Amino acid sequence: MKQEQTEPSGKSISGGINYPVPAREQRGTLGNMVFATEKLLLARILRAIGNPPVQLVLWNGHGISNHGGDAVARVLIRDRGALLKLVTNPELYFGELYTAQRIEVQGNLLDFLEAVYRVWLLRNQGKIGKKLLAPFYDARRNSLSGARRNIHHHYDIGNDFYKLWLDERMLYTCAYFTSSSTSLEDAQLAKLDHICRKLCLRPGEKVVEAGCGWGALALHMARHYGVTVTAYNISKEQVAFARQRAHAEGLDGQVEFIEDDYRNVRGEFDAFVSIGMLEHVGRENYPELGRVAKRALTAEGRGLIHSIGRNRPEPFHAWIEQRVFPGAYPPSLGEMMQIFEPSSLSVLDVENIRLHYALTLRDWLQRYEAALESVRAMRYDEPFVRMWRLYLAGSIAAFETGALQLFQVLFTKQENNSIPLTREFMYPR
Amino acid sequence: MKQEQTEPSGKSISGGINYPVPAREQRGTLGNMVFATEKLLLARILRAIGNPPVQLVLWNGHGISNHGGDAVARVLIRDRGALLKLVTNPELYFGELYTAQRIEVQGNLLDFLEAVYRVWLLRNQGKIGKKLLAPFYDARRNSLSGARRNIHHHYDIGNDFYKLWLDERMLYTCAYFTSSSTSLEDAQLAKLDHICRKLCLRPGEKVVEAGCGWGALALHMARHYGVTVTAYNISKEQVAFARQRAHAEGLDGQVEFIEDDYRNVRGEFDAFVSIGMLEHVGRENYPELGRVAKRALTAEGRGLIHSIGRNRPEPFHAWIEQRVFPGAYPPSLGEMMQIFEPSSLSVLDVENIRLHYALTLRDWLQRYEAALESVRAMRYDEPFVRMWRLYLAGSIAAFETGALQLFQVLFTKQENNSIPLTREFMYPR
Repeated sequence: MKQEQTEPSGKSISGGINYPVPAREQRGTLGNMVFATEKLLLARILRAIGNPPVQLVLWNGHGISNHGGDAVARVLIRDRGALLKLVTNPELYFGELYTAQRIEVQGNLLDFLEAVYRVWLLRNQGKIGKKLLAPFYDARRNSLSGARRNIHHHYDIGNDFYKLWLDERMLYTCAYFTSSSTSLEDAQLAKLDHICRKLCLRPGEKVVEAGCGWGALALHMARHYGVTVTAYNISKEQVAFARQRAHAEGLDGQVEFIEDDYRNVRGEFDAFVSIGMLEHVGRENYPELGRVAKRALTAEGRGLIHSIGRNRPEPFHAWIEQRVFPGAYPPSLGEMMQIFEPSSLSVLDVENIRLHYALTLRDWLQRYEAALESVRAMRYDEPFVRMWRLYLAGSIAAFETGALQLFQVLFTKQENNSIPLTREFMYPR
Repeated sequence: MKQEQTEPSGKSISGGINYPVPAREQRGTLGNMVFATEKLLLARILRAIGNPPVQLVLWNGHGISNHGGDAVARVLIRDRGALLKLVTNPELYFGELYTAQRIEVQGNLLDFLEAVYRVWLLRNQGKIGKKLLAPFYDARRNSLSGARRNIHHHYDIGNDFYKLWLDERMLYTCAYFTSSSTSLEDAQLAKLDHICRKLCLRPGEKVVEAGCGWGALALHMARHYGVTVTAYNISKEQVAFARQRAHAEGLDGQVEFIEDDYRNVRGEFDAFVSIGMLEHVGRENYPELGRVAKRALTAEGRGLIHSIGRNRPEPFHAWIEQRVFPGAYPPSLGEMMQIFEPSSLSVLDVENIRLHYALTLRDWLQRYEAALESVRAMRYDEPFVRMWRLYLAGSIAAFETGALQLFQVLFTKQENNSIPLTREFMYPR
């Protein structure tokens, strides 16, 4: 998915630094001082983001370059306010300013983001990130009401918007690509089956789903695995959509969608499944999630939690946490264990499929870019369009560079000996 | 694997409490007081171990029963000193006294041990264990010299002893049973291949093994996967044995056995593998193990660590840690993450195969019991024979009840994108 953008002037970024370098002799003393100060600020920004191979250029054509002709992209800073904001907090304000069109990335946006991620990860694995992000750590608590507010922010912006670029089943979580050429539709279908197989679903069993999105997994389990499903979600729009679908597909007797928090799950089930909800649960609530799952499971019940994660404890990128997913957090595997260990749940299987999320996001970004006319024809303005582009492209970069992981964790109660000896059942031929 | 033992008197334990209840009227006041005290002590022991369905009987025929006719076994305490020791610390002294023949378990030893584990786990998941074990927490530090001492204690008691009951390849770690009827030889072979497949070994690659036992995996990798192996072990007897084997099999040009600590691993390798060593590493050394593995791996290298573990942090059973495996500790998955997270290693796959260890141990115990004459014909005395029986049977019970887990963790450096998309490569048909 290439997003070639050329500068309005038509200049190419390849082949060396080609911004006009103002000759010193043409300037007065004041001009020279301003120029020197600007260069210092640009150098400071470059340093703060780990000296990636990029060019930074100002509205007036001044600029600096880190790697000369090898720069993967040129970042055009359009005004002095933007420059100053970038100096104070590049991680947060890059997204803000890009969204507001006060920064342009000339060249391939994705290459640029991956280059930035790579140096950021190399620079002592996230120390910079931690420091820059410190002010935002004290995220928005996911209390029962806080969770509703946070979820509403992202998931209730309009089903029609998501329909434009998600797969036909409306799955907004990592797909499962049996090969890198699998289509998104097939990969999402394969994901559903991969999860159902891991859960060893048998006809007639009862499943509870915590955080069910637009209901695709619940409906798939009911239709293809003969189970009854109780699915929880606190996104009003998603639940309304899922109920309509269940009715249209004649599955409303078999699948119940409940607009409520996972903490209010009641009853006993043969399987507990939660796909892409943990990111919104909040670390302080992990032990409670484990207790909820344990309480919900029968003696032979199986549980699966699927979540974005990290190699080590570290919050989401500040801009993502502020503007895209308020209150969200990608746990390390060690942090995830705070779900299972306090309840002595047995972790049977962990699969990390981060590269599948990069592939999923590449498809989403491609479809999103292809649907831009429709996005604009709806009520969405240019900053919205750019925010979503940056979020999707940045996420690809994060999964491809290993800054983010995707964990699927299969678990049971401690004394459950009923799981097959080997994992071959997950890979039928 | 049944170990039916009947009481010397020939009485069966089934069908109710059948020990002779002394009639009160036949005793004097002092006799009654002693009787009452003994009963109190027995009740206290039963309570301390969580009231499992067993009978406790004293040398004089007095006793108590918890579940009447449903008792799975009768524990005969042969002298007053044994009774008092059991009262002070049943977890530690049960093993000591059983070994010394001052306690007999009448009925099926394994059923008895599983019953004890079950109630122990139910009683708030290990709280009892933690309290009882507290004095032994401050285990024996696995410094470079301490590690040598601890390893010598268990692994250098004589290769000939282990030959009597291990499989032909001399693998002293959990096997991999493709079905519950697989033979031990086949299951150990399948384990070697399962590990090699997970590591995606390719001919010509270099592998380093940390803690190589008697060398079976190293030799197997060299012979069947065309790799060269550098294998570390601090057990003198094991290394000598492994070198002989390599020479006899004509593999000494391809496999080098080094009698040294894993912390001294030098060089770069395509794969890092460690099977059943982590139990002896000590939690304080986990981050260093991660640094050693990271330093040893090429950019596209794969690592695998295989270890006994727990669902939640908790040491080994006190008697095991004191008498069988000094300095050993079974980490929870969360604790294991202290290997990977400080080095930002990516955990790709975790498989928990605890039931395979129960099957492995059942085979070992059966072979061990069948080889008792040979064990005794060597220099080993009855306490040694009983210690090994209790250790093997107790381990079966621990894995079957979920008190112990067996984790295989596959990992790479953070930026390694060269691993196959799906895990199907682990399951060839």
